[in-house]
Amino acid sequence: MNLNALKKLLVGSPLATAQARHERLSKTAALAVFSSDALSSVAYATEEILLILVLAGTAAIHYSIPIGFAIAGLIAVVVSSYRQTILAYPQGGGSYIVTKDNLGTLPGLISGAALLIDYVLTVAVSVAAGVAALTSAVPGLFDYRVTIGVGFVAAITLANLRGLRESGQLFAVPTYLFIALVAVLIGYGLVRWAFGWDPAARVVVDPSVAAVKDLSVFLVLRAFASGCAALTGVEAVSDGVPAFKPPEARNARIVLAWLGVILISLFVGITFLTRHYHLTPLSEQTILSQLARQIFGDGALYYAIQASTMLILVLAANTAFADFPRLSYFLARDGFLPRQFSTRGDRLVFSNGILILGSTAAALLVLFGGSTHALIPLYAVGVFLSFTLSQASMVRRWLVRRESGWKWRWWLNAVGAATTGLVVAIITATKFTHGAWVVVLLIPLLVMLFMAIQRHYADVAGQLSLDGYGGPPPMQHTVLVLAGDLHKGVIHALQYAQTLSPAVKGVYVELDPEKTRRLEEKWIKWGMGVPLVVLSSPYRSLLQPFLDYLDHLLALGDNHMVTIVIPEFVTKHWWQHLLHNQTAFLIKGTLLFRKNVVVTDVPYHLR
Amino acid sequence: MNLNALKKLLVGSPLATAQARHERLSKTAALAVFSSDALSSVAYATEEILLILVLAGTAAIHYSIPIGFAIAGLIAVVVSSYRQTILAYPQGGGSYIVTKDNLGTLPGLISGAALLIDYVLTVAVSVAAGVAALTSAVPGLFDYRVTIGVGFVAAITLANLRGLRESGQLFAVPTYLFIALVAVLIGYGLVRWAFGWDPAARVVVDPSVAAVKDLSVFLVLRAFASGCAALTGVEAVSDGVPAFKPPEARNARIVLAWLGVILISLFVGITFLTRHYHLTPLSEQTILSQLARQIFGDGALYYAIQASTMLILVLAANTAFADFPRLSYFLARDGFLPRQFSTRGDRLVFSNGILILGSTAAALLVLFGGSTHALIPLYAVGVFLSFTLSQASMVRRWLVRRESGWKWRWWLNAVGAATTGLVVAIITATKFTHGAWVVVLLIPLLVMLFMAIQRHYADVAGQLSLDGYGGPPPMQHTVLVLAGDLHKGVIHALQYAQTLSPAVKGVYVELDPEKTRRLEEKWIKWGMGVPLVVLSSPYRSLLQPFLDYLDHLLALGDNHMVTIVIPEFVTKHWWQHLLHNQTAFLIKGTLLFRKNVVVTDVPYHLR
Repeated sequence: MNLNALKKLLVGSPLATAQARHERLSKTAALAVFSSDALSSVAYATEEILLILVLAGTAAIHYSIPIGFAIAGLIAVVVSSYRQTILAYPQGGGSYIVTKDNLGTLPGLISGAALLIDYVLTVAVSVAAGVAALTSAVPGLFDYRVTIGVGFVAAITLANLRGLRESGQLFAVPTYLFIALVAVLIGYGLVRWAFGWDPAARVVVDPSVAAVKDLSVFLVLRAFASGCAALTGVEAVSDGVPAFKPPEARNARIVLAWLGVILISLFVGITFLTRHYHLTPLSEQTILSQLARQIFGDGALYYAIQASTMLILVLAANTAFADFPRLSYFLARDGFLPRQFSTRGDRLVFSNGILILGSTAAALLVLFGGSTHALIPLYAVGVFLSFTLSQASMVRRWLVRRESGWKWRWWLNAVGAATTGLVVAIITATKFTHGAWVVVLLIPLLVMLFMAIQRHYADVAGQLSLDGYGGPPPMQHTVLVLAGDLHKGVIHALQYAQTLSPAVKGVYVELDPEKTRRLEEKWIKWGMGVPLVVLSSPYRSLLQPFLDYLDHLLALGDNHMVTIVIPEFVTKHWWQHLLHNQTAFLIKGTLLFRKNVVVTDVPYHLR
Repeated sequence: MNLNALKKLLVGSPLATAQARHERLSKTAALAVFSSDALSSVAYATEEILLILVLAGTAAIHYSIPIGFAIAGLIAVVVSSYRQTILAYPQGGGSYIVTKDNLGTLPGLISGAALLIDYVLTVAVSVAAGVAALTSAVPGLFDYRVTIGVGFVAAITLANLRGLRESGQLFAVPTYLFIALVAVLIGYGLVRWAFGWDPAARVVVDPSVAAVKDLSVFLVLRAFASGCAALTGVEAVSDGVPAFKPPEARNARIVLAWLGVILISLFVGITFLTRHYHLTPLSEQTILSQLARQIFGDGALYYAIQASTMLILVLAANTAFADFPRLSYFLARDGFLPRQFSTRGDRLVFSNGILILGSTAAALLVLFGGSTHALIPLYAVGVFLSFTLSQASMVRRWLVRRESGWKWRWWLNAVGAATTGLVVAIITATKFTHGAWVVVLLIPLLVMLFMAIQRHYADVAGQLSLDGYGGPPPMQHTVLVLAGDLHKGVIHALQYAQTLSPAVKGVYVELDPEKTRRLEEKWIKWGMGVPLVVLSSPYRSLLQPFLDYLDHLLALGDNHMVTIVIPEFVTKHWWQHLLHNQTAFLIKGTLLFRKNVVVTDVPYHLR
């Protein structure tokens, strides 16, 4: 009762099924809703590139420019490729569904496993980066970053359990504010650069990384792999086509193109200016924060940038709270995840998926000390694997269907699949020992779990199926009433048992012959004609003699059901219950899964 | 299954009731069995006196001699008094029973509460002192004293759960070894003193206590109160009279007299020599260890003294493991403690009492850092309270019965009661703020708990009693089968329900009208003629519509029972169970304590 009230306070009253509604988004609203995940990654992608490069000394930092351009090119390829997917899947082309459709179940499950892992990481990485934006501006909070991060995750989880709507308005303000502020930052930075207003760039260098070391091809590739985090979330538009106003596919393609252009501009701009100002990563301040301080100084504009960065990162985490439960639902609907993921809760949301996502992400934050950088090696493997599978699916689809104009679309997807496939290889190879191995191991384990679950459901369905079923064999029935004494509660149970069957027996386990004699006397007067079976117990066990007797009854035949009626009294207060022998509880526990045995408590209520 | 195997390994196989046996003890064996608690306290009593006196500086230490003689006199008084109790209670005169017999229930319960607390403290104090004997000899173990103490408690608990016999042989070796070694120590010490072999006594002084301060009467009384710990366990002989060989009472009285003489000799001897050598307490070495090193040097005799001290202290702790469960049994038998304390376990011991005692004592050791000295202020309050009540009971008994020669026995008990009553007042007053308040508070709380438990049992017995019972009113019965679908498992449950009652109804909660239509089609073919009730659920809750329907049925009358049959399938492995909806579990939880409702799972076993 109290738990219900608490639940109501936290997540609100139940909503009726009929209250489910679907909002259609304009292009500007859709850009806000679907871009936060992708755009927010510019807040940390440049920094992750630099963090690898500085391992070879500050001189290696100029490699950030070519790496930045390579990633920009990659964004262009992936965006072009996904624009073809939108055309083929106007009903929404999530990677799991597209891959399962075109390549088969196993690749579909691999894609699903990769995505589930990455949704968890999206939450952890985005929240960690959002907290970093906050603690860069307010250094006093740095020591509390894990607590703050877990608090953010808890708040987002709760909001989603309430059934937060992905309303355009909610998303529009922080997203467009972030785009505008970063655009101003880059624009003003470029103006300062063009006019040479910062002739002697102030070099902020962490002394521990100042030494010049050898830069290997491997390290450059690893820096590139880390920067690929910038692409996470690009697929969101193609997953959400049905939410667009008609013509859905056309509008979605336009929005995806916008997203590509904005993402490339912001990412390249930040990377370029970071290089120009010779910024290097500091453990307690993000690169974006350093850049904003450098260009805007420590005023209102700086704090506005930090605030909007934090907000868009939290929104990015929030998108995973729509994606993860939806993918779990698809997987559960196909029998690959427990059925509990396929039912909507009181507030019409997939509560189980939301809770699993929130708790796993919070655990990751604690485990990795709330550090974006520590989580990055695990990230992106899954994203790029699902990119590759999704685009490979499209390649096969064009080839099979050969719809008009399929050839150049086939080419675009083939280039996309090949490129992202190469990126998967690079990420896995360069980040394997730094944590990517966890994901590489986890994906096949999850796939095996999915298949085991599906096998189980199929097996159960087969065993329960009525196809060709000839009906049940006839059933015999014995009812036993366990009596430790004879009082009103036992009489109540005897009376109940007699309504169940004419063949009721009382069963008593004898510990003390004197007590048996007294019970038998009472039984003659009050036993309602029910015969009493007395079992002796040389070892004072109440259970064993009864179990032996039960075995004897069950041996009478495979269709012989035994119902064990246990008189139990229900005390007024729960603690009073502790004052009574827990025999009933013990018997239930022992017989819970016994074949052909039904255990029935008959409660007698005490005042 | 595995848990059972582990239990068998730890505590052994069950014993049959007929295997219970009673050993009769010779006087020498009885002295060993019943004296360990009392004698072992000489290992720490002198030290506790000194620990208080040194608060007034080293010069105050010579007060230990008069205090020692006062305590010796007290022992003589208490022993004389208890010798009268033995005469009156040859069947064993525990304080709870004697007090309840003669003064009434409330004083009996006070005595019982005081004793329960003191048994716990006996274990904690004895084990702490035993560990101190060990760490005095092996200082390297000092840092592990809490762990070692808890280990001792665990070992004693386990031995008692196995059903350790209080055999004379087991107790005789360490007890007589301890008596002999301490007697040699004192004898040889007195010889050295008489011949003046230690002219310049080496004074070992803890520098922190060297300052001379004012000695108040209060402090002398507090030192006396601490020394009273020497008397704990003196009552054991009178509790155990039936274990003696006949003539029981006479033999017990002789053994108690021996005990008194030995106890006084050892205690006074140790106290005198401690004074002679100017020993003062050290935190890492006991007084007895200092004394033994002083007289014997650091050789084999010294280590023998330490080992036998440790052993007799562990034995002392062990005696509480017989006393506490036995007293719990008496209290439970009279309805003042939960019934679970009155049943013997597989090994014929009162397992619940043993487990409670072991865990409470271990918790105290951890809480008080394994320090004897920290525990002492809590100790002895309860012992002397029960002494006083027990002897006051005897005073009343002689007065009421006026058996032959009652007058001087009356006098002995009256002096005993008055003296121990005075000691209770001294202990409470001087140690109240140092911890005795805990016990002073706990005793009435326990008494209130005893009475609340007894009231509850009496109330339940009254409600269940058949005295003047007119028999149960007629009972009506409806059986509902909850069906989420129709498959072999549900058919099995329907068939079972039909054996219970001709009036069975299937109940289905509708979430999706399309599924209802399909279910109804199947039901026509396979529903075995059982009518199906379809409940609509606008909020997708499976539970609420059903609860509303149930309320409607229950409103039909107070004698209307509703049995809810829930088809449940039992999977082969427990984890597979997680893959199925937990609706059955939820419904059971919700309806567990509902009046006139019986919930019955009908398991369907999957391969």
